[in-house]
Amino acid sequence: MTDMCILMTAAVCHDLDHPGYNNTYQINARTELAVRYNDISPLENHHCAVAFQILAMPECNIFANIEPESFKQVRQAIITLILATDMARHGEILDSFRQKVDNFDFTNEEHVKCLKMVLIKCCDISNEVRPTEVAEPWVDCLLEEYFMQSDREKSEGLPVAPFMDRDKVTKPTAQIGFIKFVLIPMFETVMKLFPQIEEIMVQPLRDSRDHYEELKQIDDAMSEAQKKKTESMSLGKKK
Amino acid sequence: MTDMCILMTAAVCHDLDHPGYNNTYQINARTELAVRYNDISPLENHHCAVAFQILAMPECNIFANIEPESFKQVRQAIITLILATDMARHGEILDSFRQKVDNFDFTNEEHVKCLKMVLIKCCDISNEVRPTEVAEPWVDCLLEEYFMQSDREKSEGLPVAPFMDRDKVTKPTAQIGFIKFVLIPMFETVMKLFPQIEEIMVQPLRDSRDHYEELKQIDDAMSEAQKKKTESMSLGKKK
Repeated sequence: MTDMCILMTAAVCHDLDHPGYNNTYQINARTELAVRYNDISPLENHHCAVAFQILAMPECNIFANIEPESFKQVRQAIITLILATDMARHGEILDSFRQKVDNFDFTNEEHVKCLKMVLIKCCDISNEVRPTEVAEPWVDCLLEEYFMQSDREKSEGLPVAPFMDRDKVTKPTAQIGFIKFVLIPMFETVMKLFPQIEEIMVQPLRDSRDHYEELKQIDDAMSEAQKKKTESMSLGKKK
Repeated sequence: MTDMCILMTAAVCHDLDHPGYNNTYQINARTELAVRYNDISPLENHHCAVAFQILAMPECNIFANIEPESFKQVRQAIITLILATDMARHGEILDSFRQKVDNFDFTNEEHVKCLKMVLIKCCDISNEVRPTEVAEPWVDCLLEEYFMQSDREKSEGLPVAPFMDRDKVTKPTAQIGFIKFVLIPMFETVMKLFPQIEEIMVQPLRDSRDHYEELKQIDDAMSEAQKKKTESMSLGKKK
């Protein structure tokens, strides 16, 4: 019950006051947040700090009636979960979970803590688990956020990540890689513990991967056709 | 040369804007700093953030002429050093250094980074290396800071650490434990790498330990005498 409350509060609060530019931008642009947090998960530290600033207001304090000793533990757990959503720590956290999952012990505090970290990560990036008509508008929003950042990075002379660059990324290429190398491996690992998610989460991810791979083949065929057309037109001109 | 510059800048900046109440107080009193930094080394994170806020001012930017790529490394190194001064990490950092010192490799980046962390820690708590007439006034100041905190903790109903409690600590008891269990073990470990510090640093620490142990014996004898006097006076009254 406490774990559920911790997970839900952390999930609701985990992106509070997000400015729309990721940690890499914060650090490279030397923003106020990056300076404040010494380049250490600046956004996640900020989301979490804002959460507890809100919770400290009497009219928002949903923990007002729990004992100070319990509050300490709840606070510590929420901090751990929100900080776990920094994707820079994805490999580390998933590796740690992989080492536990085959002998998972629900009475072992470290195991449960690690599971909760993986669960909030699953929620955080779960968009592609949903039906295409729900997921796709959010992918459009995400790409818009990425392009906004990369445009700004270009104009400010900062490094640009290829996966954010409107000249290098399409919706299918962006999603295929993320689904194949981030989402499916993580959800399949959780599936070892909760087999029932195969049908309701992992299969939709595989379907989405296949859907985007089909789209990519169409994109590729169209650009190939476009290329041939351009070539034959330029040959026609040369004749 | 870069290492020297990094160490000196970190040393100068490592306690910037210190409020005089330690991390334990910050966390237990749920101060603005503790909330901002999610209870993770709140003071050290703040000292470091203030350092780079100052360095970002054009008139204070001593790194204005170094390349952005070098600045990144210098910044990362200074952050690592300032955060290493959190005494909550003392055991972890000293253990890590102990594992390297017998086969220390000055060309190994991890080794040098760890050495620098231990060196700034040595500087941070080096007061007792100095002659008694220099060190003692600072011990008085430190105890005053501790007592100010513990008085405030008592009045706010917060937990009080025994080593800060004016009812439990004297100058000799405070210093003997710190010199024997924190300072001498750390400086003796560094001595394995730099034997020349035995004479100029470790021996003064041993002398200071002996000095405070003598003082403690006098204190003990005096309170024993006081106790006997009170007893005999109360016996006298009973007669």
